[in-house]
Amino acid sequence: MQKIYKFQTADNIIAGQNSIETLKDNIGLIGDEVKSVLVITQKPMQDLGFVDIITRQLNEKGIKVDVNIDTIPEPTAQSIEDISSKIKKAHYDVLIGIGGGSVLDTTKILAVLEKNDNTIKEILGTDLVKYPGTPTILIPTTAGTGSEVTPNAIVTLPEEQLKIGMVSRYLLPKLVLVDPNLTVGLPKAITASTGMDAFIHSLESYISNKANPISDMFAMRSMKLISSSIVEAYENGKSIKARENMILGSLYGGMALTAAGTAAVHALAYPLGGSFKIAHGVANSMLLPHVMEFNMDCIIDRLYDVAEPMGIDRNLPANKVAEKVIERLREWTKILEIPQNLKEYGVKKEDIHGLAVAASKVTRLLGNNPKKLGIQDIENIYNKLLK
Amino acid sequence: MQKIYKFQTADNIIAGQNSIETLKDNIGLIGDEVKSVLVITQKPMQDLGFVDIITRQLNEKGIKVDVNIDTIPEPTAQSIEDISSKIKKAHYDVLIGIGGGSVLDTTKILAVLEKNDNTIKEILGTDLVKYPGTPTILIPTTAGTGSEVTPNAIVTLPEEQLKIGMVSRYLLPKLVLVDPNLTVGLPKAITASTGMDAFIHSLESYISNKANPISDMFAMRSMKLISSSIVEAYENGKSIKARENMILGSLYGGMALTAAGTAAVHALAYPLGGSFKIAHGVANSMLLPHVMEFNMDCIIDRLYDVAEPMGIDRNLPANKVAEKVIERLREWTKILEIPQNLKEYGVKKEDIHGLAVAASKVTRLLGNNPKKLGIQDIENIYNKLLK
Ligand SMILES: NC(=O)c1ccc[n+]([C@@H]2O[C@H](COP(=O)([O-])OP(=O)(O)OC[C@H]3O[C@@H](n4cnc5c(N)ncnc54)[C@H](O)[C@@H]3O)[C@@H](O)[C@H]2O)c1
Ligand SMILES: NC(=O)c1ccc[n+]([C@@H]2O[C@H](COP(=O)([O-])OP(=O)(O)OC[C@H]3O[C@@H](n4cnc5c(N)ncnc54)[C@H](O)[C@@H]3O)[C@@H](O)[C@H]2O)c1
Ligand SMILES: [Fe+2]
Ligand SMILES: [Fe+2]
Repeated sequence: MQKIYKFQTADNIIAGQNSIETLKDNIGLIGDEVKSVLVITQKPMQDLGFVDIITRQLNEKGIKVDVNIDTIPEPTAQSIEDISSKIKKAHYDVLIGIGGGSVLDTTKILAVLEKNDNTIKEILGTDLVKYPGTPTILIPTTAGTGSEVTPNAIVTLPEEQLKIGMVSRYLLPKLVLVDPNLTVGLPKAITASTGMDAFIHSLESYISNKANPISDMFAMRSMKLISSSIVEAYENGKSIKARENMILGSLYGGMALTAAGTAAVHALAYPLGGSFKIAHGVANSMLLPHVMEFNMDCIIDRLYDVAEPMGIDRNLPANKVAEKVIERLREWTKILEIPQNLKEYGVKKEDIHGLAVAASKVTRLLGNNPKKLGIQDIENIYNKLLK
Repeated sequence: MQKIYKFQTADNIIAGQNSIETLKDNIGLIGDEVKSVLVITQKPMQDLGFVDIITRQLNEKGIKVDVNIDTIPEPTAQSIEDISSKIKKAHYDVLIGIGGGSVLDTTKILAVLEKNDNTIKEILGTDLVKYPGTPTILIPTTAGTGSEVTPNAIVTLPEEQLKIGMVSRYLLPKLVLVDPNLTVGLPKAITASTGMDAFIHSLESYISNKANPISDMFAMRSMKLISSSIVEAYENGKSIKARENMILGSLYGGMALTAAGTAAVHALAYPLGGSFKIAHGVANSMLLPHVMEFNMDCIIDRLYDVAEPMGIDRNLPANKVAEKVIERLREWTKILEIPQNLKEYGVKKEDIHGLAVAASKVTRLLGNNPKKLGIQDIENIYNKLLK
């Protein structure tokens, strides 16, 4: 446990069913002078009518609304800079991101690009953004990345076959609306992989070297909510109760990871996303049990704790309980039908070394892992996913 | 449970033993241009050397530090305006409040007075502050009010024999340092009454009509931390573990009450503070069991939940468990030697009606109470404290 620890989050969080309808009442939190906003989203969310809900409310207030749907999944630096140069002359007062982590991260980065004369590459890394960006409102539609409350944004750099994080308090939004209704129509496969991602944020935060009382509280609560609802949300997507638990679990996961950081699962997932376009949640889910087994001897006590919010019987020796936690994670990925074989994505034996070298460079996250990983350890883990 | 709910907190929270020593590293979070600060505190904290810790660090950075020790306990509007007119011409870049709730509330109000051309009375109530104030850093030395993370500040209006709250997001600080070391020297009676206040924030938030999943999480965690440590902190003040649990419990209590609000205990305590100068935590502790007994039929389920973090056996009918919760609260006030008789403070039978009328005006908090209180109900509760 860290002795000194830090918490920060979005300025205002409004949660609950239909909270998206409070946008008009809460836009004032940004300031009196909002005349024009740009909504950043993607076609699926536009087709679901989410943009209309926003436009209607803001038009009522006399605010001009433009929409951009160019965000690509797991956005590259280039894709974000393309949007940036397209919008730069319009000088919006607020950027509203409504979507999954890809949209939220894109929105966060666009906002700081508006007010900083930098390329994205210049400000990747920790605390390199110099000035606050355009104010943002973030509305998640996956449950999910928790990106709506993290000071992080992740970009793909295809040329370096890697994903890299930008970390800056200026990436935090002014307002977050967390509305479970928006996730009711999530396709099953996305419910599954994004839900696992949320759980992994909390689990990795809980075992992180930077874990602390604040992150632990969010992580434990998040794992409890997600454990109780991930299978239900997958099998019965219309269950608002399950959807609400999931989106709150994701929110708290974002708060946990802001305070404690994720670890080796995320570090090893980045090259899989960067080189083979494996979706973030899928890559994480694949790696999860193997990384936890690697960590096992260092995290028995912590996994024993985690059994509690997961509802796993703890009347057994701690190491047995810890094994049951990992067993449960494997069961989930089976029920949720998440791919488990890297071959399906075209990964070959001869790619493993390069992937491992790339992963070993994600020191920001590897440093949080309770057990050190050498290149060989990383290769061993990837090899388990080549069946 | 509220369907739509809201969370907001301080911009940056740094917690843990010796976190006060991180001030120099974190002052940059306020901005690059900090040249002069004013420390608001009281003599006891100055005598304990807390101001020196701040001055040393800021002087190293070339920042000029002035100190004001004029804050009075349970500050009146007039006392704060007096300090305000004294400092107004100095134009400090940051105000740092280090002390209990009285100091923190004074600092928060001073900061908004700097940038708003108002008397305090004009901006008492909810959301009446027009412009952001001077940035503040808040460092609690009691555990406590949680004022370091609430958008509230409470002032005494002796002429109206009442305490009234100012509620505004502009009262939230830029930076909070939560250092249990600062509470090690707290006198026993203050440990007791402020610790009970913290617990009551969480308990009232948990039973509030505005309770919601976010406030519940903070409230439950807070009650667990405080239950495990309040007696230990009182009896063995040097226990850093107990002090850390208490100050985190207080922090989370502040977060809970920000999201859900306190209720009748606080509403009935205000006139006791306003008219008879009974310390906030003492007034609350006195009222606590009686208000909960009044509420009982509406809160059995919630008190049953609360038994869990309090470590009370729940293998009994729910109403019995709820009674045990109240019994435990009574035991605490006995062990902590908190006065239980209003007569000790000069309250007489004939004062009760006036107190009840005053309390009935605290509609902001009474509206959160799960059971409606008429004037007669309030009088009955006060009368129980006249023995
Ligand atoms: N900033 C952070 O803290 C953080 C944390 C974890 C991951 N990430 C990043 O977030 C990205 C992944 O985000 P994600 O997992 O949310 O996926 P995503 O945003 O890429 O969305 C996945 C797909 O689902 C669609 N979709 C989203 N919401 C929908 C809805 N309600 N209904 C129908 N379709 C919907 C999207 O259009 C997209 O095609 C990655 O780039 C990852 O690296 C960021
Ligand atoms: N803003 C909020 O959200 C909120 C919530 C609850 C209460 N309050 C208000 O806060 C005030 C009460 O604050 P409080 O209960 O912290 O008491 P307090 O600030 O009045 O402090 C009580 C006494 O303890 C002394 N003291 C404080 N810290 C000390 C330390 N570390 N060592 C030695 N002495 C110390 C003070 O000098 C003072 O004499 C009331 O006005 C109450 O209405 C505000
Ligand atoms: Fe993730
Ligand atoms: Fe209080």
